[in-house]
Amino acid sequence: MFFASDNWAGAHPAIAARLSDTATGFSVAYGDGDLDKAVEEKFSEIFERDVAVFFVATGTAANALSLTLYGKPGGISFCHQQAHVIEDECGAIEYLSGGGRLHGLGGALGRIDPDRLDHALDKHVPEFVHAGRPTTVSITQSTEIGTVYSLEDIATISTITKKHSLPLHMDGARFANALVALETTPAEMTWKRGVDIVSFGGTKNGCWCAEAIVLFDADLARELSFLRKRAGQLFSKSRFIAAQFDAYFENDLWLENARHSNAMARRLADMIKAAPNARLGWEPQANEVFAVLSRQQADALQEAGAAFYDWPVPEDFSKPLGKDEQLYRFVTSFATTAGDIERFATLLG
Amino acid sequence: MFFASDNWAGAHPAIAARLSDTATGFSVAYGDGDLDKAVEEKFSEIFERDVAVFFVATGTAANALSLTLYGKPGGISFCHQQAHVIEDECGAIEYLSGGGRLHGLGGALGRIDPDRLDHALDKHVPEFVHAGRPTTVSITQSTEIGTVYSLEDIATISTITKKHSLPLHMDGARFANALVALETTPAEMTWKRGVDIVSFGGTKNGCWCAEAIVLFDADLARELSFLRKRAGQLFSKSRFIAAQFDAYFENDLWLENARHSNAMARRLADMIKAAPNARLGWEPQANEVFAVLSRQQADALQEAGAAFYDWPVPEDFSKPLGKDEQLYRFVTSFATTAGDIERFATLLG
Amino acid sequence: MFFASDNWAGAHPAIAARLSDTATGFSVAYGDGDLDKAVEEKFSEIFERDVAVFFVATGTAANALSLTLYGKPGGISFCHQQAHVIEDECGAIEYLSGGGRLHGLGGALGRIDPDRLDHALDKHVPEFVHAGRPTTVSITQSTEIGTVYSLEDIATISTITKKHSLPLHMDGARFANALVALETTPAEMTWKRGVDIVSFGGTKNGCWCAEAIVLFDADLARELSFLRKRAGQLFSKSRFIAAQFDAYFENDLWLENARHSNAMARRLADMIKAAPNARLGWEPQANEVFAVLSRQQADALQEAGAAFYDWPVPEDFSKPLGKDEQLYRFVTSFATTAGDIERFATLLG
Amino acid sequence: MFFASDNWAGAHPAIAARLSDTATGFSVAYGDGDLDKAVEEKFSEIFERDVAVFFVATGTAANALSLTLYGKPGGISFCHQQAHVIEDECGAIEYLSGGGRLHGLGGALGRIDPDRLDHALDKHVPEFVHAGRPTTVSITQSTEIGTVYSLEDIATISTITKKHSLPLHMDGARFANALVALETTPAEMTWKRGVDIVSFGGTKNGCWCAEAIVLFDADLARELSFLRKRAGQLFSKSRFIAAQFDAYFENDLWLENARHSNAMARRLADMIKAAPNARLGWEPQANEVFAVLSRQQADALQEAGAAFYDWPVPEDFSKPLGKDEQLYRFVTSFATTAGDIERFATLLG
Repeated sequence: MFFASDNWAGAHPAIAARLSDTATGFSVAYGDGDLDKAVEEKFSEIFERDVAVFFVATGTAANALSLTLYGKPGGISFCHQQAHVIEDECGAIEYLSGGGRLHGLGGALGRIDPDRLDHALDKHVPEFVHAGRPTTVSITQSTEIGTVYSLEDIATISTITKKHSLPLHMDGARFANALVALETTPAEMTWKRGVDIVSFGGTKNGCWCAEAIVLFDADLARELSFLRKRAGQLFSKSRFIAAQFDAYFENDLWLENARHSNAMARRLADMIKAAPNARLGWEPQANEVFAVLSRQQADALQEAGAAFYDWPVPEDFSKPLGKDEQLYRFVTSFATTAGDIERFATLLG
Repeated sequence: MFFASDNWAGAHPAIAARLSDTATGFSVAYGDGDLDKAVEEKFSEIFERDVAVFFVATGTAANALSLTLYGKPGGISFCHQQAHVIEDECGAIEYLSGGGRLHGLGGALGRIDPDRLDHALDKHVPEFVHAGRPTTVSITQSTEIGTVYSLEDIATISTITKKHSLPLHMDGARFANALVALETTPAEMTWKRGVDIVSFGGTKNGCWCAEAIVLFDADLARELSFLRKRAGQLFSKSRFIAAQFDAYFENDLWLENARHSNAMARRLADMIKAAPNARLGWEPQANEVFAVLSRQQADALQEAGAAFYDWPVPEDFSKPLGKDEQLYRFVTSFATTAGDIERFATLLG
Repeated sequence: MFFASDNWAGAHPAIAARLSDTATGFSVAYGDGDLDKAVEEKFSEIFERDVAVFFVATGTAANALSLTLYGKPGGISFCHQQAHVIEDECGAIEYLSGGGRLHGLGGALGRIDPDRLDHALDKHVPEFVHAGRPTTVSITQSTEIGTVYSLEDIATISTITKKHSLPLHMDGARFANALVALETTPAEMTWKRGVDIVSFGGTKNGCWCAEAIVLFDADLARELSFLRKRAGQLFSKSRFIAAQFDAYFENDLWLENARHSNAMARRLADMIKAAPNARLGWEPQANEVFAVLSRQQADALQEAGAAFYDWPVPEDFSKPLGKDEQLYRFVTSFATTAGDIERFATLLG
Repeated sequence: MFFASDNWAGAHPAIAARLSDTATGFSVAYGDGDLDKAVEEKFSEIFERDVAVFFVATGTAANALSLTLYGKPGGISFCHQQAHVIEDECGAIEYLSGGGRLHGLGGALGRIDPDRLDHALDKHVPEFVHAGRPTTVSITQSTEIGTVYSLEDIATISTITKKHSLPLHMDGARFANALVALETTPAEMTWKRGVDIVSFGGTKNGCWCAEAIVLFDADLARELSFLRKRAGQLFSKSRFIAAQFDAYFENDLWLENARHSNAMARRLADMIKAAPNARLGWEPQANEVFAVLSRQQADALQEAGAAFYDWPVPEDFSKPLGKDEQLYRFVTSFATTAGDIERFATLLG
């Protein structure tokens, strides 16, 4: 019953096996080996166009280097006010971008409100140096609270970014979970809807450590290669990432993992809805479930072996908490079993 | 005959196997899991004192965060003029330290000349803001050109750094190779000789990706934890690094790998010395061999399947090159075989 | 009728005269001259304790270096959401601090709400690296909207900062206007109420260019001297700033200028209150007046020669604007004349 | 006998007077006033083409923002190894550029050796991320040791920078002294010889504080305006700089000041050559004289009221110092009088 985070899981056996298979033999270092090249091509296939792919160590690095690539002096990136880049990356964006700012916007259910975005961007006069200037917009797919932007939502956001000549970044730490939730393709969910750069995460969905920046504008690839190296993010034995992605994509393992994970979340949500002493915060769309429990209940569950964290209540949360209640987050992964869910449901009573 | 770099090798089978073994099961993320804790203790045993250990993605990150930890506004780090931090890290030190400077010093055979270091430090008047101020000294062990600082050399350097109240950093990307060359212990080669912080590399010696900062001053550990997270260097599934180090240290695999690698370099050097048409640049002490060949010979060797790079001639190199000659570097690793060396020697003629 | 900003005025004649008087003769450069030393002592007298004084070029620099001095990796500075550091400094804080973040808090009438501050600081767990960590709190005195923190307000804020072991910065771009509004002393308004560092502005109150950082903790003076030099903010002929402050403080010119400026604002506010077609936004306490006018009226006034800017409506503004109305800012200075006010009032009708 | 530096002088009376004249009246702030505009046009006249002009607080800021404007991630700026940007700016370039590096090159008499520059640039392979990449070349005119680059020297350097597609920066802290030494025009000494951006200094030649960046590529002006504001270098009452330049350029005051200063240096040099117990280091070309004296003699001169500093011996200095001798620097300015020189010569004996 490890629902603390999807990064508490280990690696999927097929990915672990591929790493073992790749261990022997020599290969060119720093991303120029055959396997690296093959995996880059695989990314291009998956995205249905040529893409430039940059492996990095963490999602934080992927986000920060993406926003840095498109940054400018006095630049401001707009994101949801609960986005990971603001709440959970220790100022990495500001630091690695050399002083860029994040401007958090509100919006229901973890998604940026398009009107607020448009309004915030409209306030900036291009030649007025005092206030700084918008440089990027970043959306999280799936969001920090387990919802997803629909394809229309993404198109609406990108219409606004294009109006203001700004690039659109997608933090896809849980890209696969959103993808299967929408039953769509990577191309439809990104560049065909106006996304310019993606932090493509594999770690939370069955890899050990497989994070990549997927860049659609080839002209910027050289700059990004310098940014990555300079940030200490260029792996020498790069194929150990490539091997993970190789297995991740093979036979659609990544989609299968995400479908399993989302299905476990759905099942967990249904059981919470059915439980007399718990309430669902909102309907999950990916692999995160938020529920209101009493603190005593939560304590009892944790003592019984369930791992999960409490979570700050979103500003648009419409179901007031009782004096003794708290919002909690439950995350499922490829490694969550139906048995885990059953056991938890039984404990929940 | 892959002598291009020790990072062209893959992972040692025992390390690959340990990763597989660790794949299943859940664990606390971000370095707080049981295996992480156990490996941290292992580091403390190996160094014969409590140390704080920070896994990072690359040697570049380990170096940059180490020097940043001890950095100050207007700060200058002193290193050998051919050090990796200057020559091969794309300005990562300057960038991640927020504008620190590297000052390269000369010195024979890849080692900082202590007199030049002392003289350079003496020039700085503490209260004079214009020139900036020394903040750290960094030595590379083994050096970029395959030599090692003796224990006395290290003590001489640290006597100078202590005189100037400066911390001493060791770039140990090839720590193990130096250690077995000196037939000493990690404690003797570091804190017992005045070293304050170490970039401890496992990647070049048989791991996929296992780099750590080893910090001897526990009071600074909290700061470094913020520095690491902020730099996008805190792995979520951190145990995949821990597992590699776990196997690396078990049964002294790391020392065995390094001994093998050094022995292969020694054998290669002997064969080069014996060859009629090649000259050794200088005696190797670790796992890198530098030789002077004619360009035609080098081309022929490369066509025959040997991989190696040319190398800039050090300023103190005393054996003038012929018009057609060039200096080349040959790096051995745990994966180099005696057969590779034989085959190369045969081709060398 | 130049109400656009107090920085549209020139220099007070006494200050201009002092610069002329000081022009001839030689002096040690970089702040070590006799006049610099004398003016530093004058600051200590005014603040009734030893202070370290650092001249810088702009208020932006004073703010950024102050917050940088107390900054840390992953650091977050808390300020009012309409503070100059957020709204009008082009990201200088984030840039010069190497990636610090500003967190804007709400609060009525331009002042940070103490409860919101306390709540925001309480949320941060010291050892949790993900969210970053609070490093400083910055208040603006007088505020961006012409109000002032009372001495009790400041004490309330500093009680909170001390509880969280954080330093308190005061952006005193309009320090003198607040001081005379409160009829208090510099000591009472700063360190006696828990302020640790002040951006002390003279430019808006009659100097050409006279901004200083006033630091109460002498132990940090050396660090700040490096920060200032490294930021390109150490004037060589530093006495040209010293001379301005010298005249500024002589015979309480600075207090006289501020009293005049505030009185002009008061008079303007009274006339606006009396006007049939204008409303005061809120009562001015220093030298800025905010009023609601119809856009036609504003246009007419501007055509008639009055200079002033529109201003974003604060979130706590309780008087809804008519469809055609807008909030405008009017700033007075030492150079504003009663005649200007009269003329404007006449135009206002 | 104040020969310590040209920034020990005050302001020229005509410049002080102009400041007084400009003190009254209101003006648009932040560089958009009439006088600012007029002075910008004056710069365009002087340079015989449209230029963009940015006032900043110090020469350090002018240099750092110039190199930052043309900087890139992993970027390296090449300059003379004794350049002010390396030796006397406390790491401002590295800091303000977000981690750029300075690479010091040798060269006789304070001038970059063109062959060494070409060789250093040739070593960099554009697509190789490890070593970083050249981004700018910076020359100092007149140099740190009082020599000047001839027009041919500048053309030689810019031929190399253009071959490598790099911009050329001129640190003109003593621009006027070089200009009158060469008896040429600003246009000939800069853009007509391939210079792209100039740190144009007025402070050392008779202003209080008048430093400007002169940019020849109008397309970059918007970027530089953000860089300047973000660095806390945008003066609000900007006309106090404009007024200084206005008087500086009027009736060629700047050229007159520089001619006087250079002539005083020439006279001082001649007297040193004639003195029995002193030797000239090298022939001065601008307003700095370097001489070898015995330490006793220097002490005696300083006790008699002469102010001057000792100076590190350049690596190419061909006249070995006696055991008791030292190299000293003497700087003249607009305020140096023939009487000062006579008196010094008399003391020298």
